[in-house]
Amino acid sequence: MDTIGIAVMGASGRMGRMLIETVNASDRAHLVAVTERPGHDWVGSDLGEALGGAASGVPVVDDPLEAIVKAQAVIDFTSPEATVAHAKLTAQARAVHVIGTTGMSDADIAALDACARHACIVRAGNMSLGVNLLVRLTQQVAAALDEDFDIEVVEAHHRHKVDAPSGTALMLGEAAAHGRGVALADVKDSGRDGITGERRRGDIGFSAIRGGDVVGEHDVIFAADGERIVLRHLATDRAIFSRGALKAALWGQGRAPGHYSMMSVLGLA
Amino acid sequence: MDTIGIAVMGASGRMGRMLIETVNASDRAHLVAVTERPGHDWVGSDLGEALGGAASGVPVVDDPLEAIVKAQAVIDFTSPEATVAHAKLTAQARAVHVIGTTGMSDADIAALDACARHACIVRAGNMSLGVNLLVRLTQQVAAALDEDFDIEVVEAHHRHKVDAPSGTALMLGEAAAHGRGVALADVKDSGRDGITGERRRGDIGFSAIRGGDVVGEHDVIFAADGERIVLRHLATDRAIFSRGALKAALWGQGRAPGHYSMMSVLGLA
Amino acid sequence: MDTIGIAVMGASGRMGRMLIETVNASDRAHLVAVTERPGHDWVGSDLGEALGGAASGVPVVDDPLEAIVKAQAVIDFTSPEATVAHAKLTAQARAVHVIGTTGMSDADIAALDACARHACIVRAGNMSLGVNLLVRLTQQVAAALDEDFDIEVVEAHHRHKVDAPSGTALMLGEAAAHGRGVALADVKDSGRDGITGERRRGDIGFSAIRGGDVVGEHDVIFAADGERIVLRHLATDRAIFSRGALKAALWGQGRAPGHYSMMSVLGLA
Amino acid sequence: MDTIGIAVMGASGRMGRMLIETVNASDRAHLVAVTERPGHDWVGSDLGEALGGAASGVPVVDDPLEAIVKAQAVIDFTSPEATVAHAKLTAQARAVHVIGTTGMSDADIAALDACARHACIVRAGNMSLGVNLLVRLTQQVAAALDEDFDIEVVEAHHRHKVDAPSGTALMLGEAAAHGRGVALADVKDSGRDGITGERRRGDIGFSAIRGGDVVGEHDVIFAADGERIVLRHLATDRAIFSRGALKAALWGQGRAPGHYSMMSVLGLA
Repeated sequence: MDTIGIAVMGASGRMGRMLIETVNASDRAHLVAVTERPGHDWVGSDLGEALGGAASGVPVVDDPLEAIVKAQAVIDFTSPEATVAHAKLTAQARAVHVIGTTGMSDADIAALDACARHACIVRAGNMSLGVNLLVRLTQQVAAALDEDFDIEVVEAHHRHKVDAPSGTALMLGEAAAHGRGVALADVKDSGRDGITGERRRGDIGFSAIRGGDVVGEHDVIFAADGERIVLRHLATDRAIFSRGALKAALWGQGRAPGHYSMMSVLGLA
Repeated sequence: MDTIGIAVMGASGRMGRMLIETVNASDRAHLVAVTERPGHDWVGSDLGEALGGAASGVPVVDDPLEAIVKAQAVIDFTSPEATVAHAKLTAQARAVHVIGTTGMSDADIAALDACARHACIVRAGNMSLGVNLLVRLTQQVAAALDEDFDIEVVEAHHRHKVDAPSGTALMLGEAAAHGRGVALADVKDSGRDGITGERRRGDIGFSAIRGGDVVGEHDVIFAADGERIVLRHLATDRAIFSRGALKAALWGQGRAPGHYSMMSVLGLA
Repeated sequence: MDTIGIAVMGASGRMGRMLIETVNASDRAHLVAVTERPGHDWVGSDLGEALGGAASGVPVVDDPLEAIVKAQAVIDFTSPEATVAHAKLTAQARAVHVIGTTGMSDADIAALDACARHACIVRAGNMSLGVNLLVRLTQQVAAALDEDFDIEVVEAHHRHKVDAPSGTALMLGEAAAHGRGVALADVKDSGRDGITGERRRGDIGFSAIRGGDVVGEHDVIFAADGERIVLRHLATDRAIFSRGALKAALWGQGRAPGHYSMMSVLGLA
Repeated sequence: MDTIGIAVMGASGRMGRMLIETVNASDRAHLVAVTERPGHDWVGSDLGEALGGAASGVPVVDDPLEAIVKAQAVIDFTSPEATVAHAKLTAQARAVHVIGTTGMSDADIAALDACARHACIVRAGNMSLGVNLLVRLTQQVAAALDEDFDIEVVEAHHRHKVDAPSGTALMLGEAAAHGRGVALADVKDSGRDGITGERRRGDIGFSAIRGGDVVGEHDVIFAADGERIVLRHLATDRAIFSRGALKAALWGQGRAPGHYSMMSVLGLA
C-alpha cells in the first residue's frame, strides 16, 4: 500500500471526527491509530465500533507515542500543552506534524521551532485554502491602496463562539496592517459603540456578527469615496479545515525539516 | 399656481441644499423662502444667487416667522431647540410641519405634541420609504419567529458619522424587540469585543461598519441552525430623505391636526 | 411510547437519509419502516445495518403499503407517480401524508385533492420555515411598493442543479407578481444576455448563479432610484427541509382532512 | 499658473458634466475649452453660463482642433469615430489623450496605435482604481485556484443599461480565463435559463441584474465545496470614473509616447 499512514490526536471531538471522515474518504491516506485522553470510554476499542459502525482495525489509544510511531503524519487540533508534547515525539519519529491547535504562547512556538530542526511541522490558525489566499490578497490590496480607502474587517460566526473578533479576522487585520506598513495595535478599532467621533484616518475597524450555526464568514472592506472593494471568504463546511490538514500531511512527505505555514503548502509563500 | 409653497429651515447645510433641489425639481411644490442663522453670509441674498446661479426670487431670511407665514409646509432638519421654536410658529400659521430633526428629548416631544393639537406635524427619524417599510417587516418577522432565530442588526455608514449604532439601526432593533414582546434595553448587545462568552439566547446584536462615503446600509439578520433570513435596506442617494420629506409635506395638506409618523404618510400605519 | 410513528418513502437517496437522521434525532417521533424500490439491495435488510451501523429494528421494505399501515405519518420526497399511488394508501390508512415531491402535474394535484377529502395532506415545494416566510414577505412588499421599484430575483445553487431559475425563485416571482396583481408570465425576464434594451417597467427579472455545493440562496431585490430593499434567504443545511417535513407530520396529527401548505403549518396562512 | 490645461470633448452629456465638475474641483488642473457637436445650443457660449451659472471664461466650441491646441491633455468619452479623429489632432499637438470611449473596433485601435507613436494615449474601458485592481486580483486568484473552484461573474446596473453582461463583467471574465490559461469564448456561460443541465467544469458563468439607478456592482465568485471566495467592487458615484480620467491626464504629462492602460497609471502594470 502506498497511501500514507495518519494518526489523529483527539478523536472524539468535532474536529477529530471530521479529520477521521476526511482521511477515511481519501485514496491517498489511511488511519493507523487515533488517540483520546486516558479514561475516555473510547480508549481500548476499535475506532469503527466506537463510532457506532463496523470494526475498522484502527485502535483508539491513550498513549500518544503508540499512535505516533505507526504514522507518517500526525494531525493535531488539541491543546497547546499536548501539542508541544506530541511535537517532541513526532520529531523523534521523523513524521510530519500538522498542527491546527490555537492559543499557542511564544514559549510553545519556540518549543515547536526546536522540534522543527528535525522534522517537518506545518502549523496554521486556519487550514482552508480560501482563507490563506484571502490573507495574501488583503496584504496586497492594502499595500496598493492609500488611506483614502478605509479598511474594515467584518466577520460572522455561530452563536457558540466565545471571543470577538475571530482569530481569522485578526489575521486578516494583521495582513492589512502589514501591507500598509503599520502595526495593527496602533490602528485597531474594534467594538464600536456609543459616541465614537469620526472614523480616524488609517484605522482598521472590526465587527463581529454572531448567530445560528454560521461556520465562518469574513469580509475585508476597502471603502473610499464613490467606490468599495470587498474581499470575502465564506466557509460553509468545516471539512475544508480537515481537507487542508490532510493536504498539508501529504505535502510534508519527504520535505526538509522546518516550521512551515499553509502558505507554503498552498504555493503562496 | 396650485403647487404648494414650502419653507426650508437651514438652507446651507447638506440636507438643506438637498431639500432645495428636491423642491425645485418638483412640479407639485415651490419654495417661498428659506432660513439661515443670523449672521450667515447668505442672509439677505437671493437663494439662487447664494448658490452661485441665477436669481430665483426666493429670499434667504434669518427670521423663521418671516419664512413660515408664507408657507403651506415647513421642512425642518435643524436642532431640537430650533425645531420646537419653529413648531409653535408653524402651528399658529396652520402650516404642515415636517420634522427630520434627531436627538429630541421627551420634553421636546411633549412640546411638539402640544403644537400638534392645532396643526399637522409629521416627524420621523428616517424619511425613506424603504427604511420605514423595513421597520415594519422587522417587527413582523420577529413576531413570527421564535428565539431559535438570533437577531443581529448590522449597519454601515460614511467615515464622518460620530455615533454607533445608527439611529435607524436602533429603530430596527426596537421594532424587533417589540415584535418579540421584550424591551430592547434588556436584550441589546452592541460593540462585541474580546472574550464575550457564548451569545445569550434572545439577545439582539448590533454592529457598526464605518468607511468611505456610504450613505446608509442596514441589515436585519435572523439566523437559525441551517438557515438565515436577511432584511436589507441600501440608501445610495440622500435625495430619498428629501423626497420623503416633500411627500410628507404634500400628504399633510388638508389633514386633521395630529403628530404623525412616516408610517401614516406611506400607508403603513 | 407516545412519539408518533413515521414511514419514510425512498430511504437511500440524499433526502431520504436526511429524513431518517432527522426522525432518529427527534424525541417526538420514531421510524416504523422505510421503503426502497423493488430490487434495491437495501430491501429486506435492517435500516441500521443497511446504513453501516448497528441493527435498529426498522425494516427496509419494497411494498409501500407494508410501511404505510404501520405509520401515523408518511414523508414522501419521491416521484409524482409514486406520490399519487402513496396518497391513496395513506388516505385509506388515515395517516398524515407530507409531500415534498416536485414536478406534479395538474392531474396529479387533482388526484391528491381527492385523497385529501379523507386524510390530512401537507404539500410544499420548499419545507423551510424561512423560505415560506420569504414568500409571504415578498408578496406583501410587492403590494406595498409601486413600479418605481424594479423587482429582481437572484438565486444561487450548487453545480449539479440542472434547471434555472430554481423552483423556489419562481415561487418568489409568483408571489411578487401576485402582490402586484399581474401574471408572472407577462412580466418574467429570465436569462438576460446580449443586447437587451432598457429594462421594461414592471418586469420581474431572474438570475441564476451556479457553483460549488451551495445549498440554496435567494434574494428578492426591490430597486428604486436612491434605495433598495432586499429580502434574502440563505439555506446552509438541507436538514431544514427534513425538519420542516417532520414539523408538518407532527402538526397534521388529529388535524381535519384537507390539502394544506407549509403556510398553515407555520401559522402564516 | 502651473496647473495643466484640459479640454473635455462632449461637454453636455452625463459624463461630460461629471468631467467638468471634477476638473473644476481640482487644484492641479483647469479647463481650457470644451466641445459640443455643431448645432448644439451650447456652442459659442461660455461654459459657466451654459450650465446656468456665472461666466467662467471657458468657451464651448464645435471645432475639436480649436480646443485641442490649447490643451495639455484631452479627455474623451465620445464615439469611436470621433475619438479616432481627435487622436490624430491630439498627437500633432503632442497632448496627452485620455480615452474612455467604448465599442472601438480593431481598426479603430490600430489607428490609435499609430497616433501613440507620437503622443501618450491612456485608454481604458473603466477608469476606476477599484475596478482595475479587481481585474488584476481576478486573474491572480484564477491562476492560483484549480477548476474545483467554479467561477461566476455577477453584475448589477441601473434600469437604463441596454446590454448584458456589462463591459466590465466581460473584462473580469477575460481576466479569469487568462489566469486559467483558457479562452473566454470556450468557457463563457451567460444567461442561464430553462433546463441547462449540470454546470460544466471550467465554465465561467455570467449573471446580469438590472434595476433602479445602481451605478455598477461586480462580484467575481470562486465557489468550491465548503468554501467560497468573492471579489467585489461597488461603484456608488460616477465621479470615480472622471477622477480616474483626470488622474490619467496628470500621469501622462511628460510621459514617453505610447498606448497605455489604467494599469500603468495605477502602478499595477
